Formats: sequence, structure tokens, C-alpha cells
Amino acid sequence: MSPHPLRPTLTTAWSRLETSPLYSLNVRDHFMIAHSFRGEVFGPAQRLHGATYVVDATFRREELDTDGLVIDIGLASTTLKSVLAELDFRNLDEEAGFTGQNTTTEFLARTIFDRLVVAIRNGRVGDGARGLQRLSVTLHESHVAWASFEGSV
Amino acid sequence: MSPHPLRPTLTTAWSRLETSPLYSLNVRDHFMIAHSFRGEVFGPAQRLHGATYVVDATFRREELDTDGLVIDIGLASTTLKSVLAELDFRNLDEEAGFTGQNTTTEFLARTIFDRLVVAIRNGRVGDGARGLQRLSVTLHESHVAWASFEGSV
Amino acid sequence: MSPHPLRPTLTTAWSRLETSPLYSLNVRDHFMIAHSFRGEVFGPAQRLHGATYVVDATFRREELDTDGLVIDIGLASTTLKSVLAELDFRNLDEEAGFTGQNTTTEFLARTIFDRLVVAIRNGRVGDGARGLQRLSVTLHESHVAWASFEGSV
Amino acid sequence: MSPHPLRPTLTTAWSRLETSPLYSLNVRDHFMIAHSFRGEVFGPAQRLHGATYVVDATFRREELDTDGLVIDIGLASTTLKSVLAELDFRNLDEEAGFTGQNTTTEFLARTIFDRLVVAIRNGRVGDGARGLQRLSVTLHESHVAWASFEGSV
Amino acid sequence: MSPHPLRPTLTTAWSRLETSPLYSLNVRDHFMIAHSFRGEVFGPAQRLHGATYVVDATFRREELDTDGLVIDIGLASTTLKSVLAELDFRNLDEEAGFTGQNTTTEFLARTIFDRLVVAIRNGRVGDGARGLQRLSVTLHESHVAWASFEGSV
Amino acid sequence: MSPHPLRPTLTTAWSRLETSPLYSLNVRDHFMIAHSFRGEVFGPAQRLHGATYVVDATFRREELDTDGLVIDIGLASTTLKSVLAELDFRNLDEEAGFTGQNTTTEFLARTIFDRLVVAIRNGRVGDGARGLQRLSVTLHESHVAWASFEGSV
Repeated sequence: MSPHPLRPTLTTAWSRLETSPLYSLNVRDHFMIAHSFRGEVFGPAQRLHGATYVVDATFRREELDTDGLVIDIGLASTTLKSVLAELDFRNLDEEAGFTGQNTTTEFLARTIFDRLVVAIRNGRVGDGARGLQRLSVTLHESHVAWASFEGSV
Repeated sequence: MSPHPLRPTLTTAWSRLETSPLYSLNVRDHFMIAHSFRGEVFGPAQRLHGATYVVDATFRREELDTDGLVIDIGLASTTLKSVLAELDFRNLDEEAGFTGQNTTTEFLARTIFDRLVVAIRNGRVGDGARGLQRLSVTLHESHVAWASFEGSV
Repeated sequence: MSPHPLRPTLTTAWSRLETSPLYSLNVRDHFMIAHSFRGEVFGPAQRLHGATYVVDATFRREELDTDGLVIDIGLASTTLKSVLAELDFRNLDEEAGFTGQNTTTEFLARTIFDRLVVAIRNGRVGDGARGLQRLSVTLHESHVAWASFEGSV
Repeated sequence: MSPHPLRPTLTTAWSRLETSPLYSLNVRDHFMIAHSFRGEVFGPAQRLHGATYVVDATFRREELDTDGLVIDIGLASTTLKSVLAELDFRNLDEEAGFTGQNTTTEFLARTIFDRLVVAIRNGRVGDGARGLQRLSVTLHESHVAWASFEGSV
Repeated sequence: MSPHPLRPTLTTAWSRLETSPLYSLNVRDHFMIAHSFRGEVFGPAQRLHGATYVVDATFRREELDTDGLVIDIGLASTTLKSVLAELDFRNLDEEAGFTGQNTTTEFLARTIFDRLVVAIRNGRVGDGARGLQRLSVTLHESHVAWASFEGSV
Repeated sequence: MSPHPLRPTLTTAWSRLETSPLYSLNVRDHFMIAHSFRGEVFGPAQRLHGATYVVDATFRREELDTDGLVIDIGLASTTLKSVLAELDFRNLDEEAGFTGQNTTTEFLARTIFDRLVVAIRNGRVGDGARGLQRLSVTLHESHVAWASFEGSV
């Protein structure tokens, strides 16, 4: 790995020890879609099928807001629901925004992450939510598999 | 507790007390399908969408077999998997057996029940499984909803 | 297996074998309340405290309706939510309907059962729901404890 | 729904409709054991291995006691823990009580059932518990398998 | 995948790659409290209500101790239980330490974190626990919401 | 919120803000073993006992591969199963590789991590998996305890 100016010591032990404290708040909802995949790696999933995705949206920040909150949990829930409503009960193969795209669980986690970040920046999750620093979106597709995307807000 | 107006009469109170003891064994698996529904009651679920169904197959009997088992758990798991494989990664709207049928969660629970009963009767789940008396099939469609069918084998 | 002294006599063994088949559909929601209990058996729970109750309402019937449903899942969910809203975010010690009553988990399961039965009979869960025969209400109070009440509709 | 050939006749349809109402209370705990099985049906489980069993003990009765309870949840939890302590952290192959017995999950569910019934009858779960009518014991052995035994107290 | 406008620049991409390996051990328990919130953002939660919090305490370190442990799981469990006992079955609105404080789930996660850190530093979790480097405390308030705080020990 | 004495200084606050985005994909399976521990800290777990470990293998990377995947989920599942098969249904006290080693949950998480990393590097999880950057392995030993190891691939 190439050196980086932000790397303060030679040991690799510093990074987690020194990471800042972090508050998280999670809300859960779900959506149900049809889709198919292109590419031999997908095997039988190349056929039209579908999935229930149980979605965890985890909002993170270093300091609570003046109400003692990471985020208004009511607004977080309704915002997540409105983002999922754009996908719910649809065949993703026919959605304009996904043309030529394999709508894998990983990809959908990123898509929902991006849409939630836009909602946060637009103030739809409240003014306090502007203090959010990171967001993680996890899609549970069964009792044995899930995928997530986490990044900065 | 104060009297409840909905309480049944004492003359019906005997049945559970007298029910026989019962052993159960459950195995879990899942399948992922696309489908749509017909009828205004279904609202947006009339559009083509899909679901992951996490399936619990619960086998029941009054006495254990000579090995101390309700059923061979390995055979139970592979039989359940083979029954689900007939549905997995498919668009149920195009399956011949379901023409004109709303493939609701309840209906699919019954369908899988019927197919497992045939497998039991055909000896695919082992000779010991012939002693099974009841079977319950539950389909979890999300973290907030499931449906099941239970009946005699 | 060696003989069990607790085994009931064969004359009671028929009842489960003869029970009719049964479809079930479950919806889940939750509510959060404060309360306290009277009676030494409750120990520290005699102090004012509270609970989150995650509620499963399980609707049962022997035959599906003409849409292939146990019940309209949308109406079931909104009806459950409206019943729980009468309890949510309240101190049950101050609710007129519960004066002199220990609002145990078991008791609350029965209370919600009774209110859902009234809603079913009043047609609030749809005309199809009039075909329901049994209802079970389960309140999960933690990861290690739950209580339920099941009865005829 | 189209006719199902497996549907029982109407003459057996009365029993569930007439079953009495029932309260249940569940407490959960766990134990960890080693054991092996004899018989070809067990395949690799004939080797010495082990399991964590997460145990649900579900107590049932038709009427609540004078405190509004199915059972004192504190006594129920400590009684379950004391019954499991007799098995916990042991090699069941070397326990005198299980000589020549395959300690399958089903069998262990029945064993714990029997021991809890003795505890109930001996008054270890409180005087109120003498009103209990049924008990179910479920052993979860993984995220995909469980077994249970239910019977009269 | 098509480019995402929200993707951070490559210059920030190094940090996770360089993070040190990390062991974690988690124990779970719960507590039940009453409280109310001040501030319009809380809506109906301004009324006196309550919650069950299922608590995960996750202890983290880079190297195992000489017994091959992150922490003595028995001491971890009893320490967590003793910290939660200070909150359990109480009305947090009347606790001296929380005067003028909204006892949100986020805030309570931090409070329990702070108290566990003191216990670790005081040796209550064993000498080996002095090697712990990070701690995460998660409070599940329902099946759809949780909050956590993670920081250095 | 009132000041917390344990709050780290602001100079350490940058690291999480700068962490790169990260995709994760998780697959779950389980194995069942017998073992015993040496050392007074283990108390009754010094006796021969056993455990079911439900295993989550979480694969992480910053960019998806050309199919829109973190990893081929089919290959991930079969690779995890083959790694667990080397441990499943065994008495770890008699496995040559673990002589003189306490096979704690933490230690086993690391062992499975190491074996999965070898499988990734050998191409057993597909060519795309060579782009993986981090891996986390979590072993759930009961409903109240789990351990994990996470590190770079």
C-alpha cells in the first residue's frame, strides 16, 4: 500500500484505537421487487425472479444534536419508506434508471444509500440530520444473505 | 381479571386439555420468485414484483421412531430443498400449474404442504417419516409478515 | 425411547390427528408503554417502569377467501396499528379502562385480542375477514420472554 | 382456490373451532453439550460433536391466576435455568440417565419437558403454576433447525 | 457500475485498508424503563411511556489474551447485568443523574458505554479486560429500531 | 448533552470521517463441535461440552466487480461450507491442528478467517474475489453471545 500523508505512525495499530467515537441510529423497513440478471455467474438467477429486501438504514455521527438525537427517528422512518416506495412492487428490469444494470443486492444498497444522502442534504430528514457524517444501508435478502454499502454523507 | 364477554362457554373448554402430546421438528430454507396478483384488494401488488420466502417445514408426530427421531433431518432438508427448487428463481405468473391462480403467501404455503405430503407418502423422506401425522409449512415474506398452512399428513 | 410416566392414555390420542387444516397469516407491529404492578410476586416490577411490546397478530381460518387470502394484509396491518395506537406512548397506570388491573403481558395480549375481534366483527378488516375463525395475539417483551392469547373470533 | 385432493372431510372440521382459548408465557435460556449418535441414519453425527440448544419453555393455561399471570416469570426463568444446569457443559454420552439413548433434539425436548412438569407439580414454580394445563419445550439447534415437545402438565 | 457522483476521491481510500485486525466478543441482556421526552420533535413520546432495551455490549481488541479470549464471557455478562440493574425497572425521569436530560436511546447507549468503561478500568471485568481497546454498546428498542455508541476504552 | 469525561480529544476525530466507502456481502452457515477448555477462568466449560456455531462470513471491498458484485454469492456459500466441513461434527480436542490450544469462539473465528483468506487467494471463490479487501467472520454461539474476527484479505 502506498504511503499517505495522513498516516501518523508506522504501526498499523493506530487506526482503530484512534478512531473517533460514533453514535448510530438504525431504522428498518422492506420492499419487494422482481428482476433478472445477465451473466453466467448468476446461474438460475438469470431467469426473472424476485426478492424481499429487509432494509436497515444506519445513520452515524460523532456528536448528538441538541435534542440528544442522532436523527429524528420519525423523519428517518418516513424518509426511508418514501425512498423504498420508488422501488417497491416493481419489476426493476423495466425501470428506466436501471437500464443495462444488474440490480444486485450490493448495487441496490448503494442506490438506496445515494438517495438517502440526497434526502439528508435536501433537509427532508430534518435540520439536525445535516450533522450526520456516515450512513450504512443493509439489504437482507434471506435468512442467510445480506449486502450493505457504507460511506460518508 | 374481570369477565370477558367474548369468553367461550365452559362446555368447549375440554378439547385442548385432552389433546395428545406432540413432537415437532423444523427445517428452514428459502426461495425467491416473481409474481403479480389480480384483484383490487391487492393494490400495488397487482404490478409484477417478487418476494423472498423463508420457509419453515414443521413435521409432527405423537411418538418418536426407533432412532429417537421425528424424521431424518438430513432427508427432511434435502426434500424441502427439492420441493422449493421447483419454484425457486421463477416467475410464478408463467408457471403452468398456477394459471388463473393468485399465488398468495397462504396459497404457496398450501402448495408446498401438498408437495411435501406427496414426498412423505412416496417414501422420499425415509420410511420413518411414514409415521408423521401433521405438517405445518410457514412462509416468512418479510420481518413483519408470514403465512402458514397446517394439516394432517 | 423408554416409557414416560407422564404420557397420557391412548384414549386421548385422537384429537390432534382429527383437527382440521388451518391457514394462518401474521402481521407484526409494536407499541411502547409505562406501567407498574401491584403484588409482591412482581418484585422490582412494582416500581414504575415500561416495555416495548413487539406484537404478532395471527389470523386463522380453514378456507381461503375468494381472493386466495386469509385476510387483506394491508387492512390487517392498519387495523393492528390503530388498535395499538390506543395504547402506544401511554402510562397504563392512568388509563381509565385498566383501573385496578395489573397490565401484565398476558393481560395485554388478551386486551388486544378482544379489540381485534371487535374490529373484525365490525367489518374494519374487510368483509372477507368475517370468515376468520381463530386469532392469536403474541406480545414479545424482550429477546427472552413473550406471552400470547389465542381464541375463537 | 381449486380443490385439493388432500383436504379432510367436513366431519373432522369442528375440532379447532371448538378449542378453548389459551394463554401462553414463554421464557428462553440455553445450554451447551457434547454427544454422539448411534445408527447409520445419523451419518457424520455418529462422531462425537456438540450443540448449543436455545430453549423456549412455553407455559399454557386457560385462565390467568389472581395476579393476572400465566406463571411468575421470575420463577419460571430460574426453574428453567436449574433444569438446564443439570445438562449444561456436559458430555451426554457419559450421563447415567441417558445410557443407550440417542440424545436427539426431540428426545432432549421431551426430557426437559418431563423435568419441568415435575418442578411444576412440586411447587418449585409457585403455587399459581399448579393451574398450568399445557407446556411446550422447543430446542433451537441452529438458525435452520429446531425440535419441540408439547403435552399436558 | 456507472459512476456515482457521491463517490469520495481516491485520496481518502486508504484508511480501511490499513486498519488493524480486530477481535470482538458480544454479550446480550436487557432492561425495562419508563421515561418521557421534552421537545416538539418527540411528538407523542413527550408523554410518559416506556421501553424494553435489549442491549449488546461488544468488546474489541487486537490481540487475544493468554487464555485465547477477548474477555472472560462470564465476567462480561455479570458486569453488563450489574450496570443495567442500576437502570432496570425505573422511571428515568426521576433518576437524579438524568435531570434535565432527554434519555434517548442514543444517550442511554453512551451512558452504558461510560459505565462499562469505568468497570473495565476498575478491573471488575478481570485483569485480562485491561487489554480491551474499543467497546460498542447497542440498544435495540423494537424490531425496527436500534441505536449504539462505540468508542475507545 | 452534558460533557462526558471519556470523550476523546478533537484531534482524533478525523479518522472515521475520512474512511473510504465500503461494500459488504454476507453469507451464513453453521457447524457443530465438541471441545473443552483448560484454565480456571473457564469454570464449568473445562468439562467436555459442545456448541453450535452459526457463522457469518462478511466479504468487503471498495468497488464492485464488473458483474456488480462483491463476490459470487454461490461460490462464497460453497467455500464457507467446505471450510466449515473441516470442523463440523468433530471433537476439537482431538484435532491435530489445535493441540494445546483453547478453541474459544474468538480463536475459531480467526481460524475460519485464515482459511477463507487462503481460499480467496487460491481463487476458490472466483477471480472476482481477488479484489476483496477485508473479511469479517462472526460465530454466534447462542442467542446472547457471539465473537468475531475482522482483518485485511
